Amino acid sequence: MTVSLKTKGLADIDELCVQTIRFLAMDAVQKAKSGHPGMPMGMAAAVYTLWMRHLRFNPQSPKWINRDRFVLSAGHGSMLLYSLLHLSGYDLPLDELKNFRQWGSLTPGHPEYGETPGVEVTTGPLGQGIGNAVGMAIAEKYLAARYNKSGYDVFDYSMYVIAGDGCLQEGVSSEASSLAGHLGLDNLIIIYDDNYITIDGETSLSFTEDRAKRYEAYGWYVQVVGGNGNDMVAFEDAVEKAKAEKDRPSLIQFRSHIGFGSPNFQDTHTAHGAPLGEDEIKLIKKNFGWDPEKSFHVPDGVREHMAKAGESGARLQEAYCEMFKKYTGAYPELAEELKNAQDKRLGIDIDELLPKFEAGKSVATRKASGAVLDALMPKLPLVLGGSADLTPSNNTKFEGSEDFQKDNRSGRYLRYGVREHAMAAIMNGIAVSDLLIPYGGTFMCFADYMRPAIRMAALSKYPTIFVFTHDSIGLGEDGPTHQPVEQLASLRAIPNLVVIRPADANETAQAWKYTLEHRDRPIALALTRQGLAYSIRTNMAAPPIWQRAPMCLYRPTRPMSCCWQAVRRCN
Amino acid sequence: MTVSLKTKGLADIDELCVQTIRFLAMDAVQKAKSGHPGMPMGMAAAVYTLWMRHLRFNPQSPKWINRDRFVLSAGHGSMLLYSLLHLSGYDLPLDELKNFRQWGSLTPGHPEYGETPGVEVTTGPLGQGIGNAVGMAIAEKYLAARYNKSGYDVFDYSMYVIAGDGCLQEGVSSEASSLAGHLGLDNLIIIYDDNYITIDGETSLSFTEDRAKRYEAYGWYVQVVGGNGNDMVAFEDAVEKAKAEKDRPSLIQFRSHIGFGSPNFQDTHTAHGAPLGEDEIKLIKKNFGWDPEKSFHVPDGVREHMAKAGESGARLQEAYCEMFKKYTGAYPELAEELKNAQDKRLGIDIDELLPKFEAGKSVATRKASGAVLDALMPKLPLVLGGSADLTPSNNTKFEGSEDFQKDNRSGRYLRYGVREHAMAAIMNGIAVSDLLIPYGGTFMCFADYMRPAIRMAALSKYPTIFVFTHDSIGLGEDGPTHQPVEQLASLRAIPNLVVIRPADANETAQAWKYTLEHRDRPIALALTRQGLAYSIRTNMAAPPIWQRAPMCLYRPTRPMSCCWQAVRRCN
Repeated sequence: MTVSLKTKGLADIDELCVQTIRFLAMDAVQKAKSGHPGMPMGMAAAVYTLWMRHLRFNPQSPKWINRDRFVLSAGHGSMLLYSLLHLSGYDLPLDELKNFRQWGSLTPGHPEYGETPGVEVTTGPLGQGIGNAVGMAIAEKYLAARYNKSGYDVFDYSMYVIAGDGCLQEGVSSEASSLAGHLGLDNLIIIYDDNYITIDGETSLSFTEDRAKRYEAYGWYVQVVGGNGNDMVAFEDAVEKAKAEKDRPSLIQFRSHIGFGSPNFQDTHTAHGAPLGEDEIKLIKKNFGWDPEKSFHVPDGVREHMAKAGESGARLQEAYCEMFKKYTGAYPELAEELKNAQDKRLGIDIDELLPKFEAGKSVATRKASGAVLDALMPKLPLVLGGSADLTPSNNTKFEGSEDFQKDNRSGRYLRYGVREHAMAAIMNGIAVSDLLIPYGGTFMCFADYMRPAIRMAALSKYPTIFVFTHDSIGLGEDGPTHQPVEQLASLRAIPNLVVIRPADANETAQAWKYTLEHRDRPIALALTRQGLAYSIRTNMAAPPIWQRAPMCLYRPTRPMSCCWQAVRRCN
Repeated sequence: MTVSLKTKGLADIDELCVQTIRFLAMDAVQKAKSGHPGMPMGMAAAVYTLWMRHLRFNPQSPKWINRDRFVLSAGHGSMLLYSLLHLSGYDLPLDELKNFRQWGSLTPGHPEYGETPGVEVTTGPLGQGIGNAVGMAIAEKYLAARYNKSGYDVFDYSMYVIAGDGCLQEGVSSEASSLAGHLGLDNLIIIYDDNYITIDGETSLSFTEDRAKRYEAYGWYVQVVGGNGNDMVAFEDAVEKAKAEKDRPSLIQFRSHIGFGSPNFQDTHTAHGAPLGEDEIKLIKKNFGWDPEKSFHVPDGVREHMAKAGESGARLQEAYCEMFKKYTGAYPELAEELKNAQDKRLGIDIDELLPKFEAGKSVATRKASGAVLDALMPKLPLVLGGSADLTPSNNTKFEGSEDFQKDNRSGRYLRYGVREHAMAAIMNGIAVSDLLIPYGGTFMCFADYMRPAIRMAALSKYPTIFVFTHDSIGLGEDGPTHQPVEQLASLRAIPNLVVIRPADANETAQAWKYTLEHRDRPIALALTRQGLAYSIRTNMAAPPIWQRAPMCLYRPTRPMSCCWQAVRRCN
């Protein structure tokens, strides 16, 4: 298919920036001898446009709490993100792009949370990013409901997601998108990279459903943008309409061309997941009028031009800080609460509040857990609970809680529906707010349904809390389909995941204390259905064994060098 | 909501049968002190109608290869199925219903394959049954394409599925339904029990998407039937239209009332998952004009009436056997091939065909696996391969293979798309054909995405073959999001699942031999991305270690007493 190389609606300097992004991606994949050039080439113009004209960010302060969130759910297109981060002024030098996919670089094959400034969540395993973004959108709605006051928009950020065919095929995104539509999350905008190609070949091999109609069925606002990936007039119009929509999440189905501009590989799966080859890259550069001999070339003016979006973001953040200073005067208690949350302080005397279970009785640890939540949750406004439609069994709903719904953004209890996988991915998205703590329950046996998202939490050290009840054959008559047999062992096999199985009611209380006070990685609680006898041991002299367990890592520890140091507080 | 107790379109004897089904379910749950009465009560009329007027089965021969398949994807409604099986003449005595959910009974809490005659697949973990049924539908299409000849409809059975809100919410069903629409599986009919209730409460809490529109988007033929679960005229009309549809799978969205007829609990989640209580049961029986003091009562004439469907099925099977006798004369080779498949014989000299890898070279075991498939697959017409969109990486597509598609039902390679979970559930559905052997590939890391279906295979001993390539950090530069770390250990923790990690190319060949020759449980093959050196050991004196490993079980072995003994061969 022959497509014009020129982007409609972009000035010359913008066009040059877009081409630079494409070539950095191609060059980095070529140098690494592995990676995915096709998606960055096809989506460069749209994502550049989003990034420069819509996304609110400050490269000097990548953790600004009111920044817009950018989620590359199609994480294999990581070089698109790294190119944008580098060119727009994040602390990601060109040398890091040259070290793409190398051991110890800040540019791993797929974006990893905590490794690279500006990477909001770990993506790569498909569909997860959509689930995460739904969680981020829930977090924003809740935070806005709690903290915004007349004249003080403390939280009004948006979520922008780039998703591919694979993301839309994975069940986790179906689950999360259905819930997002139900909740009317109008702060969520997905750009669907509709490029007709997957690894096996054309999408006609396996994916011919009407995707726009499916998202309409979920209750989303759906727009279809043609223009072969190059019509930024139509794309901008769609983004503006999506931002103006105040009732529904948005899907923009954006027709693009994988490997855009490659004479031999455009619109083929060859462009997806392997270097294009030196010869083809030269052909492409010639095609666009570039010097074919130059690699990793950033033409004059590109960085300066692309810095403008961040500079504008920095000015917005300055104004935000001014606003927040006044807010602190007007609402000191709310400001204090936020500061505590940022410092990972719960702001309560947890030992005082924890229930003490008297010796000589018997209670299921899931019920003890419910009693702990009843006692603590009224004092913990930044903890959001929920269950995947097993609320009466999981004992996750605390006394006095209200549901988080479209008409009640102050609710702190999430009705996830029978969607375990989405629940876990959504909780991960809530967790990366760095302010809210999510917990969610299901039967332990169904940990299997959410395992890919549990792993993402473990790899990324999201402080997500998984509540697994009915943790053994004590589950009883439901039978082996519902009995966890291997789940405890297999959860404990996940590096970084702390799995606590308290042996009685008082240990359950201590487990919750530990869980709420430790936010450096995810924690799973295994709780019984059946009653367990207990003795009183509320003042344990030694910390429980799990507090002394060494941490097992996916990769050798590296100082969280970039994004954490760059945190710039203004509140 | 007040709903008439009378069913429209049923004669008095049918009405009596429907009431008997409802009361057996209520009584069994009450006696067991646990279980799910609400769904059987709401769906009794529709499922009875389906069972008596549409389903082709012979209770004396539950494994007749051309029977229609009934899948209770909403497996918690197991008492609905057990009541139907008992009343229509399967070898499931009333005492087994009285022992519902008890240790050693044939009536476990959720239906289990291999335990109870007439149970086609294990269900309970939601959404799995829909995936299984898609696999069954694929199997039927393939078998029909291979064996049917003019005048000989060796295979022309249909799949009927009962699915609830939970099944439709789970991502695995979204994935499988999208693929079913793509493949145009018109032999698949799902009755969606639209009862407005989940465990947490009303579906308005979390599930408000337009489900009919979503299935239309998948390319399904969708009909919505009102009538409060009682209009069998409208329901029958919808089933007839679904059967007549020759292009698309069907979804019948059927409005029902959970706990139908219960004065206090109808249309509430109280009716879902717990006994109704003696008092309420008496009220309900009075409501329907029954003696409230009688339990497990089967009125005169009910069994006789319900036996008629099976008798009609038996006559159909007699005629089928006559037809098959002639077929054997006309097409002896095809008939022989089928007989071999039923006897679990591959019908080839596998040692002769297996490639021998010469010593002194290095090859990745995924590539060796590809070479084995190239060598064997042309001779194994009843093995269906596939991959979840990683064909070029998994080396799962064998030379000369064609895709199974809507316009090519003879293809033996399935393009599952980026849908690992559906792939596994679909393979399980193919495996229970007892004729076809499915294998499917993905990266080992993404075994996590399909884990609930792997577990179902292990629990049910489906002979499904999971091909996991890129089985270690040898995966390389894709990074930790794609690197299996804990997967091998966690797969080996699943009881009944055989996990083989061949150490070189020749072991890979032997692993495939073992896998194809052993069909008593699922097998996972862990294969490398990177080259491994190897020596020649094709004639191993001792069997590999995995052949000597003891089998770990979910529950103590019990003789497969029922359905297997009842197998009645006519070919």
